[in-house]
Amino acid sequence: MYSIDKIDKLYEAVDARGPVCVGLDTAEAYVPPLERRKWARDYQAVWAYNQALIDATVDVAACFKVQIAYYEAMGLGGLDTYAKTLRTIRERGRLVIADIKRGDIADTAAQYAKAHFEGIFEADFVTLSPYMGMDSLDPWLSYTRRTGKGAFVLMRTSNPGMRDFEYQELKSGGRLYDAVGDRLTELAATRLGKHGYGAFGAVVGCTEREEAAAIRKKRETLFFLIPGYGAQGGAAEDAAILLKNGNGGVVNASRSILKAWTTEAQEAAAVTCSDAAEAARKTVITMRDAIRAAVTAKTGACH
Amino acid sequence: MYSIDKIDKLYEAVDARGPVCVGLDTAEAYVPPLERRKWARDYQAVWAYNQALIDATVDVAACFKVQIAYYEAMGLGGLDTYAKTLRTIRERGRLVIADIKRGDIADTAAQYAKAHFEGIFEADFVTLSPYMGMDSLDPWLSYTRRTGKGAFVLMRTSNPGMRDFEYQELKSGGRLYDAVGDRLTELAATRLGKHGYGAFGAVVGCTEREEAAAIRKKRETLFFLIPGYGAQGGAAEDAAILLKNGNGGVVNASRSILKAWTTEAQEAAAVTCSDAAEAARKTVITMRDAIRAAVTAKTGACH
Repeated sequence: MYSIDKIDKLYEAVDARGPVCVGLDTAEAYVPPLERRKWARDYQAVWAYNQALIDATVDVAACFKVQIAYYEAMGLGGLDTYAKTLRTIRERGRLVIADIKRGDIADTAAQYAKAHFEGIFEADFVTLSPYMGMDSLDPWLSYTRRTGKGAFVLMRTSNPGMRDFEYQELKSGGRLYDAVGDRLTELAATRLGKHGYGAFGAVVGCTEREEAAAIRKKRETLFFLIPGYGAQGGAAEDAAILLKNGNGGVVNASRSILKAWTTEAQEAAAVTCSDAAEAARKTVITMRDAIRAAVTAKTGACH
Repeated sequence: MYSIDKIDKLYEAVDARGPVCVGLDTAEAYVPPLERRKWARDYQAVWAYNQALIDATVDVAACFKVQIAYYEAMGLGGLDTYAKTLRTIRERGRLVIADIKRGDIADTAAQYAKAHFEGIFEADFVTLSPYMGMDSLDPWLSYTRRTGKGAFVLMRTSNPGMRDFEYQELKSGGRLYDAVGDRLTELAATRLGKHGYGAFGAVVGCTEREEAAAIRKKRETLFFLIPGYGAQGGAAEDAAILLKNGNGGVVNASRSILKAWTTEAQEAAAVTCSDAAEAARKTVITMRDAIRAAVTAKTGACH
C-alpha cells in the first residue's frame, strides 16, 4: 500500500507555481544587517530571515530546499533552526528537500533514513550520494514504499571537479554518471507515479546544451533537481533544456534569492527583513517567468 | 606553517596501542537494559554508555570513530550526545574520527568543514565521499594546512553494492576506486608527514586477499581506515594485509565491541554498564592481539 507519492505532489506544484526551488542555504552573512543586529546568535537571525523568506515566496515557488551544512556549522542552535525551518515549510503545505547528500550502507543508512524521514528533521525528499552503490539507497527506499517520500541522487553535477570521477568513461560504455542514471532508471521502472516519474530522481546540473538535451531525453522517468542557476552561472535556457515540457524538474537557486537585497538601490544598512524578503520574491518571480519563457521558446521552435 | 599533523599522531597511537579503532555507532539498543532503564531518553542512555566505553578502552585502542548517523537519528539531544562524546575523547588525549561521509562543493563544503573541524562538533579526522570530485575536498584541505587535521576518503568499501560504481572498470584503465586512489596519492605527495603518510587517507574495506595486498602495495602513502571487522565478517588476517608492518591503518569495529556483553554467559537483564564496558575492553584486546599476531605471521612468512 502506497500513500500519495511526494513526487506526484512535486509535479503538481511545478504545474501550479512554476519550477523554482527556493534554496535556504542561509548563512548569517546573507541576513540584512539591520535584522542581524536584533539577534544575539547567528541561528536566531537565520531563523527570523528564513520565516520571512518562506512567507514571501510560498505562493511563487514549487518547493524549498534546505542545505543542512549551513545549519550544522551553527551547532545545536543551527540544527534547531534547521528543524523549525523544515517544519514551517511542511506546515505551510509545501514540499521540502533536505539537501544532505548522505551516502552510507546497512544499519548506518537506516539510521540516516530515520533521522531525515521522521522525527524533528523530517523532510519530504533528501539528496543522496551514490558512491557506495545501490544498496546505500535501500533503507531510504523502504520509507518510500511506506510513506511516498523521495530522493534525488547525485548524478551529473556542474562543478569543475565533476570531471574527476562522474565524467570518467567506463569500459562497459558511457560515463560513470550514465551508470548511475541507468541504475536509477531501472529503479524508477519498478514503480512510476501518476505523472510518469519514479520516487527517486537525480541531481543534474546545468551543462552544455547538447549534453543536457541528451540527458533529458535518455532519462524520461527521472525527475531532476537542477542546481547551479544564478550564482553558479546557469541561465533560463539551460534549465529549460533539462525540463520536460516545463515540468519533470525543479530549478534551485539559493544565494541569488537570499542575497537579492544586496543589489537593491538603497543602502545595505537600511534594508529591513521585509525589504529583503520582497527582493527575494521578485527574484523568484523573475526566474520563474524567465524559465517559463525559455520553455515556451523551446517548444515553439519544435526542439 | 603546519601544526603537528594528526596523521603523525595517529601513526604513533597505533605504534603505542595497536591498530584498533573503537567505533561508537551507539544505538540505544546496544546499551544493556539495566542501564537503559535508568534514563528517560535514548540519547541519555547512549551518553552514559559511551562514557563507560571510552573509559574502558582508552588505553587499548588507537583511536575512536563516531558514526554521526546514529546521533542524527536521535534529534537534537542525540547531536548533543555526539558533541559531548567527541569532546570527551579529545579531552582524554585521544584522536577521534567523525564518520560523516559528507561530500559537497564550494561554499557548502566550506560550511561542512567549519561544522566538523571547529565548534562543538570538532573532530580530528572526518570521512568524506569523493563522488563530486576533488574540488569537494578543498575546504577541508585548507583546514589541514592550518591545523593538521585529516580525512579518510571513501575508496574501496566492502559492501555488495560497491560493485555498482566503485568497482566499475574505466576506459582509461583501472577501476573507479583506483582513480580515487590515484588522486589521493597525488594529493599525499604534496606533503607527507614524518612517518610517510599524507593527511588525507582512504577508507578501504576488508576484501579478497590478493586485491587487498595489491591495494596496500600501490598506496604506500595513504593511511587506511579499515571498516568491516567483526560484524561485517572480516578477520585479523584480512586486516593485517591492509596494514603496512602493522601500522599505516586503523581497523574499526563497532557492533562487536558495543554488543560484546550480549555474548556473556550471564542473563542480559543482569548486565551492568561496567560489565558491558569490561566485555568491550576484552573484545578490543582480543582483536588487537589477533591483528598483531596476524601481522607477525605475515612478516615471519616473508610475504
